[in-house]
Amino acid sequence: MASYDDKLIELCEKAKNTKYELQKLSNEERNKALYEVADNLIRHSADIIAENDKDIANAKERGVSLPLQDRLMLNEERIQAISEGLKQVASLPDPLGDVLERFERPNGLKIEKVRVPLGVIGIIYESRPNVTADAFALTFKAGNSVILKGGSDAINSNIAIVKYIKEALKTVGVNESAVGLIESTDRETTTKFMQMKEYVDVLIPRGSKNLIASVVANSKIPVIETGAGNCHIYIDKAADHDKALSIIINAKTQRLGTCNTAESLVVHKDVLDSVFVDAAKALREKKVELFADRSSLEAFSDAVPASEEDFATEYLDLKMSVKTVDDIDEAIAHINRYSTHHSDAIITEDKAAADKFLNEIDSACVYVNASTRFTDGFEFGFGAEIGISTQKLHARGPMGLKELTSYKYKIIGNGQIRG
Amino acid sequence: MASYDDKLIELCEKAKNTKYELQKLSNEERNKALYEVADNLIRHSADIIAENDKDIANAKERGVSLPLQDRLMLNEERIQAISEGLKQVASLPDPLGDVLERFERPNGLKIEKVRVPLGVIGIIYESRPNVTADAFALTFKAGNSVILKGGSDAINSNIAIVKYIKEALKTVGVNESAVGLIESTDRETTTKFMQMKEYVDVLIPRGSKNLIASVVANSKIPVIETGAGNCHIYIDKAADHDKALSIIINAKTQRLGTCNTAESLVVHKDVLDSVFVDAAKALREKKVELFADRSSLEAFSDAVPASEEDFATEYLDLKMSVKTVDDIDEAIAHINRYSTHHSDAIITEDKAAADKFLNEIDSACVYVNASTRFTDGFEFGFGAEIGISTQKLHARGPMGLKELTSYKYKIIGNGQIRG
Repeated sequence: MASYDDKLIELCEKAKNTKYELQKLSNEERNKALYEVADNLIRHSADIIAENDKDIANAKERGVSLPLQDRLMLNEERIQAISEGLKQVASLPDPLGDVLERFERPNGLKIEKVRVPLGVIGIIYESRPNVTADAFALTFKAGNSVILKGGSDAINSNIAIVKYIKEALKTVGVNESAVGLIESTDRETTTKFMQMKEYVDVLIPRGSKNLIASVVANSKIPVIETGAGNCHIYIDKAADHDKALSIIINAKTQRLGTCNTAESLVVHKDVLDSVFVDAAKALREKKVELFADRSSLEAFSDAVPASEEDFATEYLDLKMSVKTVDDIDEAIAHINRYSTHHSDAIITEDKAAADKFLNEIDSACVYVNASTRFTDGFEFGFGAEIGISTQKLHARGPMGLKELTSYKYKIIGNGQIRG
Repeated sequence: MASYDDKLIELCEKAKNTKYELQKLSNEERNKALYEVADNLIRHSADIIAENDKDIANAKERGVSLPLQDRLMLNEERIQAISEGLKQVASLPDPLGDVLERFERPNGLKIEKVRVPLGVIGIIYESRPNVTADAFALTFKAGNSVILKGGSDAINSNIAIVKYIKEALKTVGVNESAVGLIESTDRETTTKFMQMKEYVDVLIPRGSKNLIASVVANSKIPVIETGAGNCHIYIDKAADHDKALSIIINAKTQRLGTCNTAESLVVHKDVLDSVFVDAAKALREKKVELFADRSSLEAFSDAVPASEEDFATEYLDLKMSVKTVDDIDEAIAHINRYSTHHSDAIITEDKAAADKFLNEIDSACVYVNASTRFTDGFEFGFGAEIGISTQKLHARGPMGLKELTSYKYKIIGNGQIRG
């Protein structure tokens, strides 16, 4: 694949050169481009669907499961939704140019800390071709060039979508290298891409645990880790029975496959026979299988004994682990140990317990009496989301447009030198 | 070294467990500990100096240069300075607990974004043993545990300093595992440390280009890259002659070995025979050797022809490259290409040129009519500095206490579930 090496470098160089042009565009110019892209995808939806058909045919040939085929599939309606998403991103406030701080030093230097684009963002993702347009829209609105590496199963769809994004950018006089797609589908190329530190400022992986772990292990480019969510709900001894039940059912069963879905119940021993048993029954009605420690299994026998591994598992399935604790300190220690530090909740009417939990749980989002399912850029009112960061560097929790920016210091002097 | 593997894991586990305790300490408790550490180092200065003598003796035996021996050396005066540094960090405002944002969603969820510690910070550094106390003070004041990996040449000094830090922490009832020192000096251990993603939240390398490159290449832990500074001064056609001269001399010669020292002059062709020639003469008087492109060599023959490589070189020496440009656009393109994106300055009286430079130069600190030497946490008024970030993720430019923190979202509901 030596031939693609040259292409990869060319792609990276173009993205880097273009980032300087993008930084000069006004919010209006960026929005105009996003609208043109939105319209152009609709205009060429027949062609995009034809290319998507090839991906679907390949998937069928490879015996891919029906749900995965569905994730891959594009139709008029879905392209309409992609197009509306682009316009929605355009309608968001400009994340750039804010003066974050302004101060003057005793020597007269005037210093401004201003928000600027990150530069070139690399996004490595899987399956769904709508991410292609979505990731472009968010990174572009925040003034960045983007290099996309989608899943091989969606390669024809992605090539078509990027083609019509580029065409639209050209139409409005924006450099089409604002977006680049890595068309090679071999792993070697992806690994090489992760070494392109000279060109790419930040890498964001979106997808399975394995994909993310591989990017973290191999990248020389700074990475924002997203996604993994082993989320807990702690039923405190002062939990309200009805709130607990509705939150637990919602957090576990509203959508099984998302990172903010609850995977583990932590139960204060005093409410094992009351709140917990009723919650367990309600979960069983929803076909959720419980993996319970000894005490919770005694309280609710229609469960399976939990192993140590269960507490560390993000099931993404009709499964949930149960851990009994003697007090809130044990609950906090357990959660801090097993959580992926994404989202964890306490159900309690006790203000002191709530405050303790909020302060001591080491997660991006810590809830009192609400479902963990709210950890989401749209639910937080950011109007968009590129992912949910589970690391502490740069951005934590839901990432919107502001999280796709950096800052710089502008320092104005009149001849100052250092003594 | 299988035996040190166990120690390394023990060190990491202790740091991780201790981070939760540290997050509960008040600012007063943290300050009290810092004061006790400051006093304890003075109390045991004789022992620290005795241990330092071993390092100096080893350095002499290995034929280490006198300047490097001097960097390594501790005496009563230097320990006094370290001790005062600790008290000075204690006197800074508490970086924790600030509510960064507070908003309420239409469904009634109350969301607060609050500043919290990063958790466990790893610092890999070289030579000077004062960094050991300094890095502890900054990370601890910001509520973090720290694991230190110093240079092997300072190992005896570092062991002694950490011993008396731990002793002081114990005295005031703080878990001594707030600080850990990797005592093994082999490279294997350092490489293994960089894989300890499960325990360490952030890794900050401080030292040579090679050290930093090795950490970036090998770490699975998120890294904040610090240090490299190929800094430029652009003499615009509207430059003030005297400001240009004094800023250039200051930025190049005030201290040769620092990352904010200027390494390259970019000269508008219209001022080659005026401002540039006088600056060149003044630099020659200070024994600075100029590596000049063709046009600047014609204007000032007492220079050496520059190679392409010169423009990419951070000399840290009495050397400076010179590039002539036709206009400000060429200057900006040259700087964005060769700069390490640390600090770059324009000398101009033209407001439009200054604004263009401020907006389009892609560096952490962009100056108008001031020396690049001001890029420094103390000069910026942060009261402290752990390093100068040259990456765009998390922190950019001088990093003080706030840059050693993260944030989390606290979300208060009253039973909300997602529809």
